[in-house]
Amino acid sequence: MGLIVQKFGGTSVANPDRIRNVAKRVARTYDAGNDVVVILSAMAGVTDGLIHLANKMTETPDRRELDVLLATGEQTTAALLSMTLKSMNYPARSLLGFQAEVKTDCAFGNARIVEVGAGQIKNLLTDHNIVVVAGFQGCDTEGNITTLGRGGSDTSAVAIAAALKADKCEIFTDVDGIYTADPNVCNKAKKLSKISCEEMLEMASLGAKVLHLRSVEFALKHHVPVYVRSSFNEEEGTMLINGEQDMERPVVSGITYSKNEARITLKKVPDQPGIAAKIFGPISDANINVDMIIQNTRAGGQTDLTFTVPKNEYQKALDLEREVAQQIGAEDVFGDDNIAKVSVIGVGMKSHSGVAARMFSALAKENINIIMISTSEIRISCVVEQRQAELAVRVLHTAFGLDRE
Amino acid sequence: MGLIVQKFGGTSVANPDRIRNVAKRVARTYDAGNDVVVILSAMAGVTDGLIHLANKMTETPDRRELDVLLATGEQTTAALLSMTLKSMNYPARSLLGFQAEVKTDCAFGNARIVEVGAGQIKNLLTDHNIVVVAGFQGCDTEGNITTLGRGGSDTSAVAIAAALKADKCEIFTDVDGIYTADPNVCNKAKKLSKISCEEMLEMASLGAKVLHLRSVEFALKHHVPVYVRSSFNEEEGTMLINGEQDMERPVVSGITYSKNEARITLKKVPDQPGIAAKIFGPISDANINVDMIIQNTRAGGQTDLTFTVPKNEYQKALDLEREVAQQIGAEDVFGDDNIAKVSVIGVGMKSHSGVAARMFSALAKENINIIMISTSEIRISCVVEQRQAELAVRVLHTAFGLDRE
Repeated sequence: MGLIVQKFGGTSVANPDRIRNVAKRVARTYDAGNDVVVILSAMAGVTDGLIHLANKMTETPDRRELDVLLATGEQTTAALLSMTLKSMNYPARSLLGFQAEVKTDCAFGNARIVEVGAGQIKNLLTDHNIVVVAGFQGCDTEGNITTLGRGGSDTSAVAIAAALKADKCEIFTDVDGIYTADPNVCNKAKKLSKISCEEMLEMASLGAKVLHLRSVEFALKHHVPVYVRSSFNEEEGTMLINGEQDMERPVVSGITYSKNEARITLKKVPDQPGIAAKIFGPISDANINVDMIIQNTRAGGQTDLTFTVPKNEYQKALDLEREVAQQIGAEDVFGDDNIAKVSVIGVGMKSHSGVAARMFSALAKENINIIMISTSEIRISCVVEQRQAELAVRVLHTAFGLDRE
Repeated sequence: MGLIVQKFGGTSVANPDRIRNVAKRVARTYDAGNDVVVILSAMAGVTDGLIHLANKMTETPDRRELDVLLATGEQTTAALLSMTLKSMNYPARSLLGFQAEVKTDCAFGNARIVEVGAGQIKNLLTDHNIVVVAGFQGCDTEGNITTLGRGGSDTSAVAIAAALKADKCEIFTDVDGIYTADPNVCNKAKKLSKISCEEMLEMASLGAKVLHLRSVEFALKHHVPVYVRSSFNEEEGTMLINGEQDMERPVVSGITYSKNEARITLKKVPDQPGIAAKIFGPISDANINVDMIIQNTRAGGQTDLTFTVPKNEYQKALDLEREVAQQIGAEDVFGDDNIAKVSVIGVGMKSHSGVAARMFSALAKENINIIMISTSEIRISCVVEQRQAELAVRVLHTAFGLDRE
């Protein structure tokens, strides 16, 4: 018995039958003697549909007004789940973002949660209500409706769980936990019973679609016990733990890959102080995120410089760099959007050497050419040709002993 | 130049093209130097669609949660119109009911406006914004979202106009004003340039579908200058005026009819004190509205009693009265839902006699049998057979000199 926050994603509330199933699961948790707060996403597809509707009015919808529009998606599911629970004779009450006092900054469309008041939630819990909160939304200090960006309902859930000091925050989704690799690519992938927040952060930022990046940051900062579970079965799921708690850890916990990046190379750049600022200034001004950067020194005071950008910004970045190349006197600019980034992740790497060497030799054995390399304390990423991405995942999964018996 | 409140109904915002047309009309009003506040309904059909969705979850959705759901309809159109105006470079800002401080009682689904704060609207107008308010919705003292009942956006508009002391409140709809009769029934019907609030109240309560009843009450009480106009053309429309202002008035301003009632008769009721309470008590307890009541005295201390109820409550009322008849010893109970109520309405009646006589003789000439009669100070209604309703309207239209030359 305790206070449990349960978050259900868009596929879990995609239609009336699924909402009914969510209601049953929530009711079971309540019947077991728990206080329950439910956070909901919009029905799968609804947010995209609303964006499509806005785009019928204008190609560049005002961001404040777009948030007012998008907030209706979660408002709908919160009302539907509450009335379903009521019809089952459970005392349920829906709250919208502003009613749940989810206070954000005013970055419409991608707002950050500043504070969760939760006073109203606590009052309702004291009166033994099941509280159903519309996820993804909040309001700024002026009372404008804001939304938290794609996947933001995860962050709503973890932030509300933190404010309530909940005993656990369960993220129900259409997968039954975090796997050592994407099971669609690697049939030997195993579900992890635990994963550290740091590893999850790396996975989320590398394109594993399970948890919203900011929700993991929130869990890490506020020590919220988060569980990722399937809403379609009763499996245990994966527990997100803070690094300190884990005792025995494998060196590598998981392999991820991403096909969302493209690579740009400037050839024979004069090797002078300040040249990097000239190259990355225009990219930064255009709000394009640069991920990996590699610089190779050549003879004769020249270097080659390669970096990656999100694939959907590739053409824009390439055009910007062609101008830059002329200004700084680089010989050539070229790029490639047929790449993929494959990463091995594990907090165990901190205390183990030889991980990189094992990764490179495993890839080499399968004739997978490494185009770029970057590392963090708990991650090694290699850019490879896109067609070899899935093969690379499987090879590394075996090489690091992750295959299921 | 002045402060103008413009309300657009569901057919006026039924799709992106129509919302664009609304934006153009609002922009013209703003360009002419006016302060503009816009009140919107949901897209035509959306409210019914949401009710249908709720009914997929439960046959009797919780009223609080249904209001949370229904409020998304007007939230959607308010956001879409605001982003459209913004894309046309007009400074627009949407406000939901609670943001516009539309304070209501807590009668979910049929809430009454208690007060409109309008502070936020005034601030936005001072900064020269076009303010777009989601109609039909408000919030109660506890911050719950409420809705005002079908047609409630009219009331939102008039109440906000009253709070702002607006110079006029224009109700844009799919007809171009108030007619002397339904033009679909009587092709000689004329548009009225003016109508008194009292007449409009009678018409609204008798089923003329132009204005929400409460909005007319609000206009009458707060002296709001209301205009009913078409959103599809530039016609002048009909002005709603307070009775005192009119000088020369025709005796009869309009003819209405309604097919939404049914009649129930209790035959040979013992004529004793307290008997009426026994007859109408159960009907009242079941929240069924009784409209006309007629009692005919018979010989021998017995009376026949006939009354009308809404057609959709007919069967329920009939069942209740069958029980009552047994208890009080009435001889028989029977009913008829093939009736229609035809009414002549006009403030001029107050100072003219002979209106009833002229009505009865006109109907008699066409062999239209009068089943029941009821009157108010400015209205005479006759119940006739349903198949003769349209004929009765045309006959009366001619008899009272309303036919267009």
